[in-house]
Amino acid sequence: MYRTYTCGELRKEHIGTSVTLAGWAQKNRDKGGRLWIDLRDRYGLTQLMFGEGVTKEELLEEARKIGREFVLQAEGIVIERESKNPNIPTGDIEIHVDRLTILNKSEVPPFLIEDETDGGEELRMQYRYLDLRRTPVRKNLQLRHRLLQATRSYLDSEEFIEVETPYLIKSTPEGARDFVVPSRMNAGQFYALPQSPQTFKQLLMVAGFDKYFQVVRCFRDEDLRADRQPEFTQIDCEMAFVNQEDVLQVFEGFAKHVYKELKGIDLEQFPRMTYDDAIRLYGSDKPDLRFGMEFKEINDLTQSNGFVVFDSAELVVGINASGCAEYTRKQLDSLTDFVRKPQIGAKGLIYLKCNVDGTFKSSVDKFFSQEDLKTWAERFDAEPGDLLLILAGETDKTRKALNELRLEMGDQLNLRTEKEGEPIKVAPLWVLDFPLLEWDEETKRYHAMHHPFTSPKSEDIDKMETDPGAVRANAYDLVINGVEAGGGSIRIHDSKLQARMFKLLGFTEEEAKAQFGFLMEAFEYGAPPHGGIALGFDRLCAILSGQESIRDFIAFPKNNRGRDVMINSPSIISTDQLNELGLSLK
Amino acid sequence: MYRTYTCGELRKEHIGTSVTLAGWAQKNRDKGGRLWIDLRDRYGLTQLMFGEGVTKEELLEEARKIGREFVLQAEGIVIERESKNPNIPTGDIEIHVDRLTILNKSEVPPFLIEDETDGGEELRMQYRYLDLRRTPVRKNLQLRHRLLQATRSYLDSEEFIEVETPYLIKSTPEGARDFVVPSRMNAGQFYALPQSPQTFKQLLMVAGFDKYFQVVRCFRDEDLRADRQPEFTQIDCEMAFVNQEDVLQVFEGFAKHVYKELKGIDLEQFPRMTYDDAIRLYGSDKPDLRFGMEFKEINDLTQSNGFVVFDSAELVVGINASGCAEYTRKQLDSLTDFVRKPQIGAKGLIYLKCNVDGTFKSSVDKFFSQEDLKTWAERFDAEPGDLLLILAGETDKTRKALNELRLEMGDQLNLRTEKEGEPIKVAPLWVLDFPLLEWDEETKRYHAMHHPFTSPKSEDIDKMETDPGAVRANAYDLVINGVEAGGGSIRIHDSKLQARMFKLLGFTEEEAKAQFGFLMEAFEYGAPPHGGIALGFDRLCAILSGQESIRDFIAFPKNNRGRDVMINSPSIISTDQLNELGLSLK
Repeated sequence: MYRTYTCGELRKEHIGTSVTLAGWAQKNRDKGGRLWIDLRDRYGLTQLMFGEGVTKEELLEEARKIGREFVLQAEGIVIERESKNPNIPTGDIEIHVDRLTILNKSEVPPFLIEDETDGGEELRMQYRYLDLRRTPVRKNLQLRHRLLQATRSYLDSEEFIEVETPYLIKSTPEGARDFVVPSRMNAGQFYALPQSPQTFKQLLMVAGFDKYFQVVRCFRDEDLRADRQPEFTQIDCEMAFVNQEDVLQVFEGFAKHVYKELKGIDLEQFPRMTYDDAIRLYGSDKPDLRFGMEFKEINDLTQSNGFVVFDSAELVVGINASGCAEYTRKQLDSLTDFVRKPQIGAKGLIYLKCNVDGTFKSSVDKFFSQEDLKTWAERFDAEPGDLLLILAGETDKTRKALNELRLEMGDQLNLRTEKEGEPIKVAPLWVLDFPLLEWDEETKRYHAMHHPFTSPKSEDIDKMETDPGAVRANAYDLVINGVEAGGGSIRIHDSKLQARMFKLLGFTEEEAKAQFGFLMEAFEYGAPPHGGIALGFDRLCAILSGQESIRDFIAFPKNNRGRDVMINSPSIISTDQLNELGLSLK
Repeated sequence: MYRTYTCGELRKEHIGTSVTLAGWAQKNRDKGGRLWIDLRDRYGLTQLMFGEGVTKEELLEEARKIGREFVLQAEGIVIERESKNPNIPTGDIEIHVDRLTILNKSEVPPFLIEDETDGGEELRMQYRYLDLRRTPVRKNLQLRHRLLQATRSYLDSEEFIEVETPYLIKSTPEGARDFVVPSRMNAGQFYALPQSPQTFKQLLMVAGFDKYFQVVRCFRDEDLRADRQPEFTQIDCEMAFVNQEDVLQVFEGFAKHVYKELKGIDLEQFPRMTYDDAIRLYGSDKPDLRFGMEFKEINDLTQSNGFVVFDSAELVVGINASGCAEYTRKQLDSLTDFVRKPQIGAKGLIYLKCNVDGTFKSSVDKFFSQEDLKTWAERFDAEPGDLLLILAGETDKTRKALNELRLEMGDQLNLRTEKEGEPIKVAPLWVLDFPLLEWDEETKRYHAMHHPFTSPKSEDIDKMETDPGAVRANAYDLVINGVEAGGGSIRIHDSKLQARMFKLLGFTEEEAKAQFGFLMEAFEYGAPPHGGIALGFDRLCAILSGQESIRDFIAFPKNNRGRDVMINSPSIISTDQLNELGLSLK
């Protein structure tokens, strides 16, 4: 070893000890008579001290030449600092250096290696190895490390077996687009990279593995939205001989375990909500329950008063922004602009101020009496000082728009962020009873809402052919703070039911056989009842840290064009390589 | 849950308890008045009992119809068995069943789901999900699971950080052939799947992560030998501020930890041997030290006796097959045939029998006196009853051939297998001081023996240009029982030395920059001294189990053509997919 201690280790009790440290020069402070270098490694910072009269002249000269991010080995004696730094654990001491070795020099880094950096996103990605030296980024990846260990130790203790499923599998046209891998030994043929190990984990249940898990990379060749990555990590699990309740119990236990282990937070029993209720009450299948503002429908209170917007609306629905009656005209206009944005799509916003003096002021005063408005306030349990925000229109669209408005109000009122000094708010939720199918206007056929192996609720099976849209599935999502942490389902284990499902999804028997033949055949040999869940691992890291972007929790992420700007990939390959694969570029 | 207990859980103390079990019907035994079904799950076997007079007639009828591998749920009372089975943990009890539910039927499986099966390799691979139901296969994967957990918990306790490096990286022509992945968003460009995360782990050292590990899939598009897989798993590690000794200590600790955890074996300190000694004494850089038969060179004892084979040989070298003096003519002929096989390549075999009466009998008696032969015997420390086997010829070839003969004799004498009732033999070995380079006759240039980032020994650096073949590297292999478990090196952290190395390997500056530019640039920003190791995970599972084939430790392996015969992959993809990727087939 090049060191006897790390840069995070030395304390008062080490004073007088001879030590050797190694690390990076974070900062030099040259006060003439005294020179300090902050030496940094993964474990912390330790101050190196050089001084006129106490340090040999040569060494002092050399220390003066040390640049930022030079790699140093320093030998010396631990001494007490004259002016202590209570902000760092090594703040009581410094090293009186008597030998200094430059292990490596460094060019001046293109941005500051500090908590707050001057480097822009693009530059930091290009020099990701320097960005990773910054404490906040390193801490994100240390949290990720701890979540990896906590995940596996929990699942191991629950008798799950970790099985590594193949990465070179088979392309299936269903679902998102596959990345494919040309096979040289089987010219003209391709492997695909897995979008998830779905079929393999079901085969492991057929194989009697009973409980399976894997923290596994998945691949999707999608046009990337801001916070998607072409490769991402998933906690993938499956259990046999279980019903939905068993899966929920195990993974509620999992979520509690990791919050306790990583954040020291004890979570209560998770609330549950049906998909229908989530949509009706929050306009979203992943409501953020860190705050209220439940939707209230007021069609019955608003009809036939001559206000055509309400009269012609399929749905009149609103939220109570508690304590916002003092919102100014400007603030209300800005909310109206917000809901009118094309991606929100509402035509307008109706408000009702419940004034502190007990009167009501609304944007539709001319259609509704104070008495009418009072009935609205009552519906919303509004108190004097509250502000009701109301949208009207076609049901689905209006709920979606109101969901956006609710989240916007949550942001404006700081209900969705952690407040300095207050306990972290964690609002987990199971959303249950998802529809089995969703209608796709474009292809004019039903798609599986989760995937084609999700089982319908037994009480809804007889509606599969007569009223497919009304069939509910044994499918569930775990939502935390308004973000989908994961989802799963109880699967179909009966090959006849699976065949009905494929038919419903518009597969011919041949297509189903070509794509899922091996799975359907496997089901002929004694498939047990089974179900599982998959959790987005990158996402879970971000949720646990109260952050938004998954990219900050990936060591070497790709940009929105699927490009790794550090290694400059993808890139062209040689003609020889193409020839060997039997491929040519168009 | 469909069960209240697993099939491996019930004991005497449960007698009288009402239980529900679920699992697969392994076997029916119908003795007329009594019918037993062995119900199997991952946890064990439990006997279900049905009997005339004690079971309802209907239920008995139903039980008689249960076929092999039907999935059953059985309710009943735990009773004491009349005839106990001491071979299984549940052998004291059986279930007096009073309710039986067929959860799923099964076709008759194509082979026996028993420890010894009648299914051939190809059939078992096609129905791998049934093969995985067999206890020996399941146990292999359970061992793999335990090794995964033990690996990570050891490395976590040693403060290694697990970092997931990308799978979609960049193709480099150096080394084995890459699998490539066409990019749709960057038409005409390709990602490559990593052969190992080598450059990323070095970048993580530059990033200050200090200790990194990952259990990671790697990919190599090679023509597959019997026991290679296109995708395989590696324990990949890297450490900063270390020298070779530090890496050896940590990973010797790792190997001891997993042997202790998984096999209950305490290993002593691992012996060490230089590469040169390994080649000289065993003709192999991965000698199997479970047995002796060290090579002895006898050029000095065999020259100028008129035996032209010896006189013209660069090397005369042999082994002592202890206790084999009684080998028959036929056995000796068969050994001669063995060494003459084209893949071994020796011209012939000279033997010397040290007879129990103190005389010597050799195949070259007419050239050597009893006195001559006695000096040979002394060189080999041979006792009466021993057999010396001697090869002669060009040094490298002769050593290689003698290595094969040594291993063959080890096999013949059962020195390389575990003996029933004896403690398992584990012979770990560090092989050190590998050559930095090896000469490639085909391309007429030097190749990196490990990889281009391996550092030369500091005392040999000045020979890099003058005598490249003599330069030794800070490279090491961990060998267990004659199998390479892993290898690694201390890396070059100085960009100037790295540039010299690339030059030595025949890279132009442009080529080096195009391929490794980002790494070389990273090294300009303060790269610490670092080194690491990679262990073959599939291989380690096999070594720990005393087995040969890695395929038995992979859940879904591919065959020698890189094919997954279960899912029938690789396969053709649609023209639409090809078009989207801007590719056409030749």
